[in-house]
Amino acid sequence: MFEKVLIANRGEIALRIHRACREMGIKTVAVHSTADAAAMHVRLADEAVCIGPPSAKDSYLNKAAILSAATITGADAIHPGYGFLSENADFAEMVEDHGFVFIGPSPAHIRLMGDKVTAKKAAIESGLPVVPGSPGAVDSVEEAFEVAKETGYPVLIKASAGGGGRGMKVANSEKELEEAWRTARSEALAAFGNAEVYMEKYLGNPRHIEIQILADNHGNVVHLGERDCSLQRRHQKVLEEAPSPALNAAERARIGEVACAAMRTLGYRNAGTIEFLYENGEFFFIEMNTRLQVEHPITEAITGLDLVREQLRIAAGAPLGYGQQDVHFTGHAIECRINAENPETFRPCPGTVGDYHPPGGLGVRVDSGLFAGATVPPHYDSMIAKLIVHGNSRNECLMRLRRALGEFVVGGIETTIPLHQRLVENTDFQNGDYDIRWLEKTMLNL
Amino acid sequence: MFEKVLIANRGEIALRIHRACREMGIKTVAVHSTADAAAMHVRLADEAVCIGPPSAKDSYLNKAAILSAATITGADAIHPGYGFLSENADFAEMVEDHGFVFIGPSPAHIRLMGDKVTAKKAAIESGLPVVPGSPGAVDSVEEAFEVAKETGYPVLIKASAGGGGRGMKVANSEKELEEAWRTARSEALAAFGNAEVYMEKYLGNPRHIEIQILADNHGNVVHLGERDCSLQRRHQKVLEEAPSPALNAAERARIGEVACAAMRTLGYRNAGTIEFLYENGEFFFIEMNTRLQVEHPITEAITGLDLVREQLRIAAGAPLGYGQQDVHFTGHAIECRINAENPETFRPCPGTVGDYHPPGGLGVRVDSGLFAGATVPPHYDSMIAKLIVHGNSRNECLMRLRRALGEFVVGGIETTIPLHQRLVENTDFQNGDYDIRWLEKTMLNL
Repeated sequence: MFEKVLIANRGEIALRIHRACREMGIKTVAVHSTADAAAMHVRLADEAVCIGPPSAKDSYLNKAAILSAATITGADAIHPGYGFLSENADFAEMVEDHGFVFIGPSPAHIRLMGDKVTAKKAAIESGLPVVPGSPGAVDSVEEAFEVAKETGYPVLIKASAGGGGRGMKVANSEKELEEAWRTARSEALAAFGNAEVYMEKYLGNPRHIEIQILADNHGNVVHLGERDCSLQRRHQKVLEEAPSPALNAAERARIGEVACAAMRTLGYRNAGTIEFLYENGEFFFIEMNTRLQVEHPITEAITGLDLVREQLRIAAGAPLGYGQQDVHFTGHAIECRINAENPETFRPCPGTVGDYHPPGGLGVRVDSGLFAGATVPPHYDSMIAKLIVHGNSRNECLMRLRRALGEFVVGGIETTIPLHQRLVENTDFQNGDYDIRWLEKTMLNL
Repeated sequence: MFEKVLIANRGEIALRIHRACREMGIKTVAVHSTADAAAMHVRLADEAVCIGPPSAKDSYLNKAAILSAATITGADAIHPGYGFLSENADFAEMVEDHGFVFIGPSPAHIRLMGDKVTAKKAAIESGLPVVPGSPGAVDSVEEAFEVAKETGYPVLIKASAGGGGRGMKVANSEKELEEAWRTARSEALAAFGNAEVYMEKYLGNPRHIEIQILADNHGNVVHLGERDCSLQRRHQKVLEEAPSPALNAAERARIGEVACAAMRTLGYRNAGTIEFLYENGEFFFIEMNTRLQVEHPITEAITGLDLVREQLRIAAGAPLGYGQQDVHFTGHAIECRINAENPETFRPCPGTVGDYHPPGGLGVRVDSGLFAGATVPPHYDSMIAKLIVHGNSRNECLMRLRRALGEFVVGGIETTIPLHQRLVENTDFQNGDYDIRWLEKTMLNL
């Protein structure tokens, strides 16, 4: 096992990784920008290295500074967390080239899944169900018409290099298609420096269901069930739950097996998440995240597994040590992402935290780097805490969530706690009756 | 189910009960002394009533004030927590006479188990194994000699009305017995106003193992396994774990069945704990606690049951709804009692809390009424927080405990966190190799 791990991230996920390391007897190195010098992940780590000024591109995205920090502290391995460099294949390669272990998949797999076109091809070749659409890039209007004839309308045009909804257009008819294709291309070019787009059948009211997998270096692959991440605002997940209120055990087992088989075919290793749209009992691959997800704790709650520990074990070459038949699901878990934002306008609200009091008691977990007096800098993602509740049933979980949200005190800044409180009182949500568009349509009036 | 429950307690357990009520949609009434006006249990409850000045006998032990508070707020039921009036049969009777539900066993069972002599008789009659000793009170030196002849030396002389080690003496030989008997009687008279003593065989290095049971009003009884509470200082539990490192599954099942059978014989209802000494594979009944225990969360961690919810359900007349075969044990849990005391001298250290930051993350639960700026008044028990960790194995649990203790910040007052940190580094403790005298002998040099 590693003796010292450098954590190339900040905030709650840096703390999360530190905790797993500490529990395994592994020393930790925190890196931080000057804005985070007094942050919790820095305070708790065994060593800390400043890697640059506040701007992420000069600090948490500064590959050379991070590798230097690993070198001078004598770290064995680097955990990238999520975001920042976690899905940067070049960084993973540099990490390995410098003789460190990258805690994650191979650079080749990161690269393969990082591009939507190659990812979709890989998905098809490894047997994952995909949304009917273009086999690759759609480089002319004529080609777009051909594809739409096969999939039927409405169709979706998406940027090959895209993400986060930019370069994405819906066409409801042949009449709308030409303009949608042109607009998507120009948006893609502006946003990503690459005009390439592809096409898919547009699904009316799908859910976002993702399968968590773990794969070691010895050919063992298991899935840890699904997470329902349909509650989204502008393609950002707001609240996640496991299991999905929409899936039954047979569907879970079936899509889980399909996902595991695909990972075996691809020779994937470490933790990964395969994201699907789900509608009328059918799954359609969207993308694969070749890293730990923000919402991994709900899977931990229902499986009893520590996913960061599993990542570390796998990266150190250990076999999983258990098979699919050993993975059991217990109860229900929900995660609320708590952001430093106005809960109505979602305008970020960085600043200094006044009072801080996380909820406690049975079935409640809080992952957060906050403390009274902490600074929430304006330079990074606005997520400042994750509240995870676990109960024997979905209803117990909802009641516990309501209770825990009511206890959560974060003074001095605005947070999205009130949004989650509104959500938990909503009948559709209570009934599990929502899709990926529901939150924006019903609660946010977008 | 009840609509409104009055919580006749303070501190973490008042908060604990409030949380269970809130999760069940039950409104809560907090009661408090003037010293606790700004306490967390008061802040979170739906209503709060001041029941007297700081002194416990004028507030939390003030039966009339508590009953008045229940009357004026229109509560349906009263939860006594632990300590204070929780094992006061007269109070339970008054609660029922005033038309409220007492959330606990019948006054008759509280009374039966509250007196050590009647409790031991009841234990014998209901088939619980007891330490060989006098059948009842030992009222003369001659009788003491007779009993010791049968049990063999060393023998223990204990006050019938006693508890907490007062009026308790060991005699290693016939020579020591007469003086021990006389001293025990005079100590008992001074401490409890009752000189009556009884005798038992003295066990050399027993563990304290207790069985948690739940019994409804319909004849259903289950046990939830054991807790090992051998780590004690002056008969006060310091750290508890479940399961016990000393028991195997067969022993657990056997003593659990014996405990359930006894509860059926006694017609006991609600939650209860049967405490045993355990030595060389044998169990010896010590006493029964007819209430929720401080250490109940470790049982919750390994069974997934919410014991306060179960108490409320039972008190409302609901059947358990599950049998022994439905109770499963998962992983290992440890609870640290964190007291506002100097960790070396155990001198209480009330005062004002400065910084407060409880640990978080996977497998960590904190039950505490503390917050930054909270007052720890000098009038009550010094326990201010419980840290409960759960892991898949005892070793995982220990590593998690070490990690969580290292994160726990309670500023402004002294706490016993450092004692727990020393414990977790101790090899005997790590090996589960301890008995009820080990902590005092090895770690505290008492």
